[in-house]
Formats: sequence, C-alpha cells, structure tokens
Amino acid sequence: MKTFSIAAALALVLSAPANAQDRDIAKIIDQGLTQSRVMKTAHELVDRIGPRLTNSPGMRRAEAWAINHMRGLGLDDVRQEGFDFGRGWEMVDIEVDMLTPRPIELTAIATAWTPGTNGPVESEIVVAPMRGPEDFAAYRGKLNGKIVLITLPGTGDEPTRPAFRRWENSDFARMDEYRQPTYDPHAIDRRVTRISGPRAIDDFLASEGAVAVVKKSYRDGKLLHGSGYRHRVGDTPKLPHIEIAAEDYRRLARLAKTGDAPRLRIDSRVRWHDEDTNAYNIIGDIRGTDPNAGYVMAGAHFDSWAAGDGAVDNGSGSVVVLEAARILKTMTRPMRTIRFALWGAEEQGLHGSKAYIDRHLARRPIPAEATPDNERTYWGNGYPIEKLAGYDQMKAYFNMDNGSGRFRGIYADNNTAATSLLGKWLGKFRALDAHRVVIREAGGTDHVFMQDIGLPAFQFIQDPLDYGARLHHTNVDTLDHMRPEDLRQAAVVMAGMLWQAANSDETLPPEPLPQQPTVTDPFAYDYPDKD
Amino acid sequence: MKTFSIAAALALVLSAPANAQDRDIAKIIDQGLTQSRVMKTAHELVDRIGPRLTNSPGMRRAEAWAINHMRGLGLDDVRQEGFDFGRGWEMVDIEVDMLTPRPIELTAIATAWTPGTNGPVESEIVVAPMRGPEDFAAYRGKLNGKIVLITLPGTGDEPTRPAFRRWENSDFARMDEYRQPTYDPHAIDRRVTRISGPRAIDDFLASEGAVAVVKKSYRDGKLLHGSGYRHRVGDTPKLPHIEIAAEDYRRLARLAKTGDAPRLRIDSRVRWHDEDTNAYNIIGDIRGTDPNAGYVMAGAHFDSWAAGDGAVDNGSGSVVVLEAARILKTMTRPMRTIRFALWGAEEQGLHGSKAYIDRHLARRPIPAEATPDNERTYWGNGYPIEKLAGYDQMKAYFNMDNGSGRFRGIYADNNTAATSLLGKWLGKFRALDAHRVVIREAGGTDHVFMQDIGLPAFQFIQDPLDYGARLHHTNVDTLDHMRPEDLRQAAVVMAGMLWQAANSDETLPPEPLPQQPTVTDPFAYDYPDKD
Repeated sequence: MKTFSIAAALALVLSAPANAQDRDIAKIIDQGLTQSRVMKTAHELVDRIGPRLTNSPGMRRAEAWAINHMRGLGLDDVRQEGFDFGRGWEMVDIEVDMLTPRPIELTAIATAWTPGTNGPVESEIVVAPMRGPEDFAAYRGKLNGKIVLITLPGTGDEPTRPAFRRWENSDFARMDEYRQPTYDPHAIDRRVTRISGPRAIDDFLASEGAVAVVKKSYRDGKLLHGSGYRHRVGDTPKLPHIEIAAEDYRRLARLAKTGDAPRLRIDSRVRWHDEDTNAYNIIGDIRGTDPNAGYVMAGAHFDSWAAGDGAVDNGSGSVVVLEAARILKTMTRPMRTIRFALWGAEEQGLHGSKAYIDRHLARRPIPAEATPDNERTYWGNGYPIEKLAGYDQMKAYFNMDNGSGRFRGIYADNNTAATSLLGKWLGKFRALDAHRVVIREAGGTDHVFMQDIGLPAFQFIQDPLDYGARLHHTNVDTLDHMRPEDLRQAAVVMAGMLWQAANSDETLPPEPLPQQPTVTDPFAYDYPDKD
Repeated sequence: MKTFSIAAALALVLSAPANAQDRDIAKIIDQGLTQSRVMKTAHELVDRIGPRLTNSPGMRRAEAWAINHMRGLGLDDVRQEGFDFGRGWEMVDIEVDMLTPRPIELTAIATAWTPGTNGPVESEIVVAPMRGPEDFAAYRGKLNGKIVLITLPGTGDEPTRPAFRRWENSDFARMDEYRQPTYDPHAIDRRVTRISGPRAIDDFLASEGAVAVVKKSYRDGKLLHGSGYRHRVGDTPKLPHIEIAAEDYRRLARLAKTGDAPRLRIDSRVRWHDEDTNAYNIIGDIRGTDPNAGYVMAGAHFDSWAAGDGAVDNGSGSVVVLEAARILKTMTRPMRTIRFALWGAEEQGLHGSKAYIDRHLARRPIPAEATPDNERTYWGNGYPIEKLAGYDQMKAYFNMDNGSGRFRGIYADNNTAATSLLGKWLGKFRALDAHRVVIREAGGTDHVFMQDIGLPAFQFIQDPLDYGARLHHTNVDTLDHMRPEDLRQAAVVMAGMLWQAANSDETLPPEPLPQQPTVTDPFAYDYPDKD
C-alpha cells in the first residue's frame, strides 16, 4: 500500500514554483497534518455526545455543540435551518432473555421509532418468515399472543474478503467506467418500501394479536443496527419491534424447529420526545470578499443511528468538515463565500440536504395524489425543475460520507465536463495520493439530489477500510475505528478543494438543467400509472 | 477452492478393485455423507446444552448426555474417569453500565472462576495498565475504592486477512517443513504464567482496596471471551474480574484521559458448585475381536469456555468423534478395540488427556519442590519416563480440535517414521481432499502429551474457516458457524482412519521413548535453577 508522509507532501509542494496558490496549499497541508484538531473534535462529538439519531436528545445536544463549535471557529452567520421530520425517540434500556429450553441473555436492540414493551413481555416465539402481504395467509390465526420472528434465519456467513482494505488501482479503473444514464419508471424506491413494508407487517401482526416482532441482524458476529423509518407523527408502529443478533436469532429458530418453541422475555424501554418535530441543518460560512461571486460548500450528515456512537457514519465527515473550516479560518478571506453544512436526517432519506434544496436551490412539482410515503419519488421525477434565486450562487458542493478512509480522489458523478477542473485542483494533492477523478456516480448521500437538479455536487472517493464490513450502522461504529491519519489527510484535501473552488476564476461546469427523465428506449410501452 | 461431492467420492472408491478394504471405506463414506447424524448430535449438544465450562452445571448436563449418547450408540464399557480439577462456576447474569459522562450499557462478561460483585458496585474507573509486579509501584496508593482497568487500551484493529478461509497448497507446503526439535530450559510455560500473573495482580489490587478489575477483550468487534484459570480449590481471586468489549473499554480509557474518570456500575452474579471437584473424561469402546492386538483411539475435548455455546471449540470435535463411533458401529467388529474419548478440562491445560496418561500410559517424576502452579512444567521435563501396563496397548491416537473445517490431511508431529503409513491410510480419502501428511507439529491440544511420551498421537489438518478470526473462545462460537458439509467429511475420515488402524497388520511406529530433553547446544551454560 502506498502511504504518504507529511515531510514528503510538504517537500513536493514547496519544491514547486512558489506561487501564491502553492504557498496556500502548503499552508493548508501544514495546518491540517501537523496542527490537526480533527481527533479532538471527534472525541467531543463521538465519545462524549455519542449517537445522534435524528431528533433524539443526543442529536439535540450535538446540534447545540455544533453551533457552539462553529461559532468558536469564528464562522460567519452560524445558523440552524429546521425542516419537518417527525418524532424524537431514544432507547433507554433493553433486556431480552431466552427462558426455555435454557436461560441465556440475548444480544438485542430496539428498532428505531418503535414502541417499548411497557414492562416485560413473556411469550413463546413463532418463526414466521415474511416478506410482505403475499406471505400473511400462511400465518393467519397462528400468532395470537406470540413473539413473532419474521426474518428467514439462514446460516452463518463466510466472509472471504478482508474486513479492512484500501483501494487498489484496479478498483479505480472500475470506478472510471462511464455508465450511460438510465431511467426506469417502475424502479422501486427503497425510501418507499422501507416504510410501507414494515407498516404492512406491523398492521398484520397487530391485528393477529402478536405481542412483539423480532427481526434478525443482517450482519453476523453479534453486530446490531436497530434501523427503522417510521418517524413521522401519526405513523408509529403498533407493536414493539426488536432486532436480535444473528447468532441468537438462528439458535431460537433451530430450537423452535426441533422442539418446543423457546419462551422469550423482552423488556424494552424507549422514550419519545415530541416537543419539536423539526430536524435541523447546521450551517456556517466564511464570508467571501466578492458578494457577487457565489459560494462553494462542503457538507456531511451529522445524524447517525443509535446502535453505536456514529463515529465513521458520519462523525468522520462531520469532523472533517469542521476541521476544514478551522484550517480555512487560518487563511485570508477567500473571494467566494465558503459554506459548511452538517445535514440532519440523512439516514432516513437525505432529508436535510433535500430541505436545503427546497429552501435555497430549486423546486420540483409534486402531484396532488402524492402521499407522505411516496412524495420523494414523485419529487425525483417532477418536471420542470424551477430554479430558486440561490441556484446559480452554488458553484461547487463537496460531500463526505464513506467512513474514515483517506481521500483517494473524487467521483465526477457522470459530469464529464467537470472532470478537467476537478483533476487540476486535486492534482495539488498528488503527494497525498488523493488525485484521482473517476466518472462513476457515488450514490446514497447528500450530494445526490443536488446532482439530480444539475448542480456541480460531488462525493470524495475514500478508502473503504472496514466501513462496509462491520461499521456501517452497527454497534461497533465507535471512535477507535476512525483512522486519525486518514482523517487528517481528508481534512486537508477538503480544505484545499474548497480553497481553490472559492478563489479560482474558473468554476465547475454544471450539467444542463434536466427537464425530463432520461430517454432510454423510445419504443417502450408502459402500463398506466399504478401507484 | 477444490470441493468434493458424495457421488464423486463414492464413484472413485467403487471404481477401484472391489477388495474388502475398499468396500469398507465405501460403506463408511456412504454412512457418513448420506446418512449423517452429525448436525443433529451437534444441535443436541451445542444448542440445547450449550456452554460446557469444566465442572459447571452445563458440563455436568453434557457429561450425562454424552454417557447416554454413547450407550445409545451401543458402545462397550461406557465410563467416566474422574480427576482432580477444582471448583465449578457459572455466570448467572452481568450488567455493566457507564453512568457518567453519559449512560450506556457496556458489553461485558465475567472472567471464569472469579467472584461476583455481591450486588451492584459503583465507582470511578482508573486506567492502570499493568503487566505484573514491575508496574505496581506506579499505582500504589491510587486505587482505593476504584474499578481498575488493567489492559493497555490500544486502538482499533485493521483485519486485512479474510475472516473465513480454506488452506491453499502453499499453506500445506509450509506445514511440511521439518523443524528440528529444540529445548529451552528457560522457556516460560503459559500454563504457569496465566495463573501466577493474574494472581499477583489480583493480590496487589485487593491490597490496594480496588473494588473490581477490568480487562479488555483481546478481539475487536464486541467479541467477548471470559477466559480465566484460577479454578483450584483455595485459589479463588479476591476481587471480581470482568472483561469488557474492546470498543467499550477504549471509550472508557479515552474519556478518562481527556476528562473526569467515568463512573461504572457493575452487577455480576456468579454461582459456585463445589459438590464435586473432579472433572471427567467420558470414554466408550467398540471392543475388538483380538484382545491382544491393543487399541486405537480418537478423542476431542468436550469442555468449552462459557461465552458462546462451545460449538466449533470443541463441539465440532466432540460430535465428529461420536459420529465416527456411530459410523463404525454399522461395521463388523474390528480386530483391535476402537476407543472414543471426550476429554474434560482441556481449556485449562489439557488436564483430561494428561489424566488419561497418568492413569493408563506413563508416569514422569515430579520433584518435591513442585507447586500446583508449576508441576505440569516439571512433569514435561521429568525423566525417566516410566511406561505403565497400557502404554504398548495404544496403537494410534487421532485428535480433532481445530474448529469445524474439513480434514485436509494430518500433522505427523515430527514422527517421520509414521508418515508412510499415515499417507497410505489417508490416501483412501483423496477424493475427499483429505490425503495430505505434513511433518509439522500441531500443538496445543490433547494429543500433545501423548506425543511427548513417544506414542503415535496425531491431530488432523483442518481448514481454518473463521475459527481463529472470530470463533475461538468467543461469544459467537455458536452452531450456525459450524459447517455441516465439513463435519460430515471429517467424521468419515476419522472413522476411516480408525477402521484402518484397527484392522491393519501394520501399526504406526512410535517414536523412541525419550529419556532426556533434546540436546540443542552442547556448549551452552545455564544459570542455577531459579524456579
């Protein structure tokens, strides 16, 4: 694996012609690598505040901390922008015990935004794997008074890829393959089904008289997640839902298959917080010298799931944004304003960055028949896109949300025209091994909707490390799995990209404002809308 | 990866000249692969009985089950042979909470054979990493009333090897490198230091007024072990000792380093069982037709640690031994007796197989100055070795204790003269990919002391799978991580090796009875004995 050293990076930059821009880059590298505060900031956020489920008390503490932190850095106009989200929820305590055929305490977590048990619930289990309404008939009349296990148990996994890894050159080659845009009007939006699916199951199980719902963790090795999406006011599940570690779940299933159904006792205590149903984005600026030059922006989602401490998802991105702000505050004032955003409610559907778009960037029509479940899908297909006043002000957006791995380059997200300037700016960080521009899209995080409306918004390529293998959304997403050297490098590169974007005469070319879905097959027939 | 199919294996064997021996092998393969009961047996032992810490109630249930199971198979002279071990102990329940700076329940386990807290204990932590007496001075006077964290916290691991893997040909080549025997009179015996080290620390911390002792799990990812060795009557630690998951431990350590020491509440309940301080080996035979031909034997340790269910360590070996017995009971009576042993107390120092040696095979002198801590070390260096009447009766011993991976061959354990016959017998299982004989020693389990006294005792080579990465001694050592196909293959090969060893005119050559330690350097000076 190629590594880098501070001395080599500085030497390379400083050996180049000492023009003003290169001196700036050298200063940013020095600040970010030798005078870093990124791990101290991470410790305050991740260890001391911990998990930040949207609208939970932890998130409220984190929001106050972030505002205070940004003000302490001397950012301008530090503000929070609220948007409708739903209920606040936190786990207080959970204990799940198998009582028969032998007593064991099981490893379990409550599913987010589901009720507690209101005292211990004790019953037999039924293993009733179900995907949705197509499976309900088989279980009707058999679940009354039962604790229902709804996941197919399966068998232990066999992970044959290293848990911790860095990208190889062959990986970058793969990321640099151009894929033509496609559009499938029947594509199923995960944001719809992950609410509607569990709701149908909860309604069915409640009507059948079940007392609690159990799903299996989707990772082996006693890892837990607790993700759930029914956060809207008036959409709270009827039953307590919990997730049990894969090993414990499968043992229950085997015992039920070969003998009397085990008895479980579940005692899950949760607390609701409905004082304020808004979630918030936290935003601060370094005001530029030219008020007509627009702004450049970096962002990361600030919320997390509740199982771990929200360290690499996405404490990492959050503290790198804050560290980039600290570094850039040591520079002279830039030409363009530099904006720093900590997004709320990313985990439940990129709600924070979407709210920023709604308020500042663009509107898309949503038809009257849209429901809260599917209005996002309609939004994504809504034309024409109407620019707001702020649309043309945003000259660049850089996002970080792939764990704590160092930056190896940037995804151009199919914006071919932008690759040249992105490459020029990243070229300053060749010695930090962060210089690659690949054409592939990076989906699933807060730059996506900006890209959808044609703005130059990008996510960095990060070394994967053990993000996917064991950290993403799990109970071991803790600070000891953040890599300090990687985060120092990331903060330098993020600051350096913002600095160049804020001071360059050239700006990143946006894509043409899209005014219809991509046409992929002019001969295709379609069913009438079935939504 | 090369795989095998039942059909291919049978076809290969049956296409060879149909002599009696090959017909026997075919019958064994058919029984073991197509009529296997190995996973059903595993379920009874691992899921229904669960952990089997030596002398715990779980182990007592397992012993009764094993005797019953062997009798059910129709084995002859099923018996248990007791030997002095110490106290019985079991965890009842543990809850460890961080109270400040924010409340979290931590992932923790009690260390085996340490006392509970006798109600909740609540105090500040002190991080006081210590290796032994050389570090005590630094902490004297600072630990009164505290919960003491004694492990160096370190940082998160970066596992760059796949968690689950099978041996490659290059691995076998490495195993087949001959290493000359060595002897270091100053070699430190882990069986001594893992008792004496913790005892010194416990004595020191108790004398300083500490209230509980915390060590860090030695694996990341919320895995727990709970291993402890002070099981002897009269040697129980003074303080409660617990192990905390690495992520939780490091968070505590970081918080203590950067602010007020966190407060913990520990509530650990354990139960002692001193009714019977003997541990037991469970033994059953298939009596041979020739009472003068001696016996061949297979064994596996039956005890486990308490964190998981003792599935791959060593439920696997135990059920394969029982399945081999079942398979061989479908054959005609062999010439030699075939003996099946489930050893007790392997995890605390191979006590069960050592007790079998003491009773049936050989004696070695132990000097008067030996203590309970170090008498095993003296035994290993005690000469002359005195053969008991049973010594020459044991014609072969085969052990299984490396998880649930299929057999890929056998370790000849430096017994060069035995490689030829081992290879001939294993050659019958070429189609099952189990035919390799490598010269290297396989340490750390129950054949070792038999090898030490010159008997032909061997351990099979097994595919590693995820045994070392996450299962060995952990809380995820559960049945879903046993590989059914692998265990069926192992049972066939074990049965086939026993069958051939029991009926062959040739017997495995033992090594010369060793009568002094290996001489490795005739010019070495030595200090006077310092023990």
